[in-house]
Amino acid sequence: MFQFTITARNARARAGIFTTPHGDLQTPVFAPVGTQATVKTLTPKHLKEINATLVLSNTYHLYLRPGDELVRDMGGLHKFMGWPNPMLTDSGGFQVFSLSKTRVIDDDGVTFKSHIDGSTHRFTPEKSIAIQENLGADIIMAFDECSDPNDKAYSAIAMERTHRWAERSLKAQTRTDQALFGIIQGGVQADLRSASAKFIASLNTPGIAIGGLSVGETKEEMHAMLDVVTPLLPENKPRYLMGVGTPEDLINGIARGIDIFDCVLPTRLARHHSAFAPEPFGRLNLMNATFARDTRPIDETCDCYTCQTFTRAYIRHLIIAKELLAGTLLSIHNLRALIRLVNEIRSTIMDGTFESRVDGWLTAWHGNAARKS
Amino acid sequence: MFQFTITARNARARAGIFTTPHGDLQTPVFAPVGTQATVKTLTPKHLKEINATLVLSNTYHLYLRPGDELVRDMGGLHKFMGWPNPMLTDSGGFQVFSLSKTRVIDDDGVTFKSHIDGSTHRFTPEKSIAIQENLGADIIMAFDECSDPNDKAYSAIAMERTHRWAERSLKAQTRTDQALFGIIQGGVQADLRSASAKFIASLNTPGIAIGGLSVGETKEEMHAMLDVVTPLLPENKPRYLMGVGTPEDLINGIARGIDIFDCVLPTRLARHHSAFAPEPFGRLNLMNATFARDTRPIDETCDCYTCQTFTRAYIRHLIIAKELLAGTLLSIHNLRALIRLVNEIRSTIMDGTFESRVDGWLTAWHGNAARKS
Repeated sequence: MFQFTITARNARARAGIFTTPHGDLQTPVFAPVGTQATVKTLTPKHLKEINATLVLSNTYHLYLRPGDELVRDMGGLHKFMGWPNPMLTDSGGFQVFSLSKTRVIDDDGVTFKSHIDGSTHRFTPEKSIAIQENLGADIIMAFDECSDPNDKAYSAIAMERTHRWAERSLKAQTRTDQALFGIIQGGVQADLRSASAKFIASLNTPGIAIGGLSVGETKEEMHAMLDVVTPLLPENKPRYLMGVGTPEDLINGIARGIDIFDCVLPTRLARHHSAFAPEPFGRLNLMNATFARDTRPIDETCDCYTCQTFTRAYIRHLIIAKELLAGTLLSIHNLRALIRLVNEIRSTIMDGTFESRVDGWLTAWHGNAARKS
Repeated sequence: MFQFTITARNARARAGIFTTPHGDLQTPVFAPVGTQATVKTLTPKHLKEINATLVLSNTYHLYLRPGDELVRDMGGLHKFMGWPNPMLTDSGGFQVFSLSKTRVIDDDGVTFKSHIDGSTHRFTPEKSIAIQENLGADIIMAFDECSDPNDKAYSAIAMERTHRWAERSLKAQTRTDQALFGIIQGGVQADLRSASAKFIASLNTPGIAIGGLSVGETKEEMHAMLDVVTPLLPENKPRYLMGVGTPEDLINGIARGIDIFDCVLPTRLARHHSAFAPEPFGRLNLMNATFARDTRPIDETCDCYTCQTFTRAYIRHLIIAKELLAGTLLSIHNLRALIRLVNEIRSTIMDGTFESRVDGWLTAWHGNAARKS
């Protein structure tokens, strides 16, 4: 059911097709994040219009609200949120560690308090899989433990636990129409990452995720870890770099053999009035007074509805007037910018020109990356 | 340029076509309100999809922010907000009286303080027209004074002032591509309304507005005033009942010869989680726990994107999870519900069955009206 076919290669970059029950995914692919069964401020129709193909939703959030059993009873996540195309859910592990104020981890699982009402809950690998089976995404994740990348001792413990939990997650799976990916951990230690890559690859899951990056380490560390990990992975499985990233991260990730990405950055930036734009602008903050009478679109080269219809002056007006439409228009643009970049990259992998374009893209998006911190 | 052709009549109801520089308007018509150059949470594409034809925007708000001169320099309101179809602006009079905390009225105009920053401003008929000419809507309004309907003495003074201001507004007009409507005032006094209707009709403006209703009077008083006013108006001019209304108001207004309506109600209700639905539901508050597992659309008879795509359970989830998409989806439905009602009414005027349908519609929407207060 979950066939992955590589259609072209250029150095370590790959273009492929991943077959899922809700349609074929062309890779590399960037997935917008719909945390609470909605990509914030956008309708599924908007997502179709920007050519989104894969949407991620969060197990932790949906378990707490509206509840995974409710989603199941409403016909599953695709039907519930009106997205008939491929979907991915994470395992809830990352959110338990990042959002819950109090949590107690043991080898069996994690007890945590809801960020909504403080109520106590417990996730185990078995529970995470049961929730994800109720939600019904096409791609689901093994339950894992994300460590502080700078704590080597903890990273080793968390990695070991992640491996045991991956085995238990696989054993707990009952549905055959969901691709359960194992997750590689290991912080920023090459030896741990190497061991984790080999172990997770040995589980023979239909795809492999790389977790615990873009969580505080440097770009150089992230690249080094990818350089350690991807050569150890089977060629015929899609590789998913979780929670990444910026335009620069996508370029660098694809160059290191990554196939799937997701990130809240485009929609989060939109809520903070920022727009992706390549050089010479870098990232634009549309609230800035300099745009008050700017009749240009955010990005003159962009084909999105926002750029084809509205000026920077109008978007700035919406921001200043506190009109919610600003967030919608900026989300459309920011997501489309990343999807367009990934699609462009894909076509260069297909025609063999990817490697020769990497430096140009990195330069074009450098202003953006530089402004990130 | 502003030809109004009545294509069918049924008792006092009329179906017509009003020609504007940005296209023909089929009447009766309901105009969504885009206070700050945006119908809250919706794109112009959404408005097209629900078959909105006329959009209103507010002179008071746009004068304060982003400023009418900026809108003019950006190419006018149509271009600025991406709405290439007919637009209407009010005169700012109503907002000066309802939103500004301190205001001093004299025969020349009104000095008021901005609701945004407390700064002092002055509107006169000449200023209101100059602003509306900068904004560039197809239909613009004479500057008027809206009185407390229960204060007869004040209503007489405000009516007289409104008449002088209408004459001055007409004199101030320099553009020939905008239809300047005079506004009838007179509170809930039949003698004042009658005098005002005759006076405004004598000005021979391309359309006539009825102001100062739906501002605190009873439904019976509103209907009585319409019964006084519309028989005194020329047949060949469109009649615009400002700031109205509910589904029931539209039915009753059209039955009394009204052609144009606008109201913030559909979008305001949407922000408060409420949806229009005919009997047996009346108005639905989608936040209600009773909808948590309701797999039906808001209205099974509705053709809008929201009703064709999403369940009540999903919309309730968005509301509970504080997702802004809830407001977008409810705005789409609520506006479409009124536009669909008006279009249905129009077709019955065309085929001569309007009168026989009025009681049925009023019964169907009664639950809605009953819940309004």
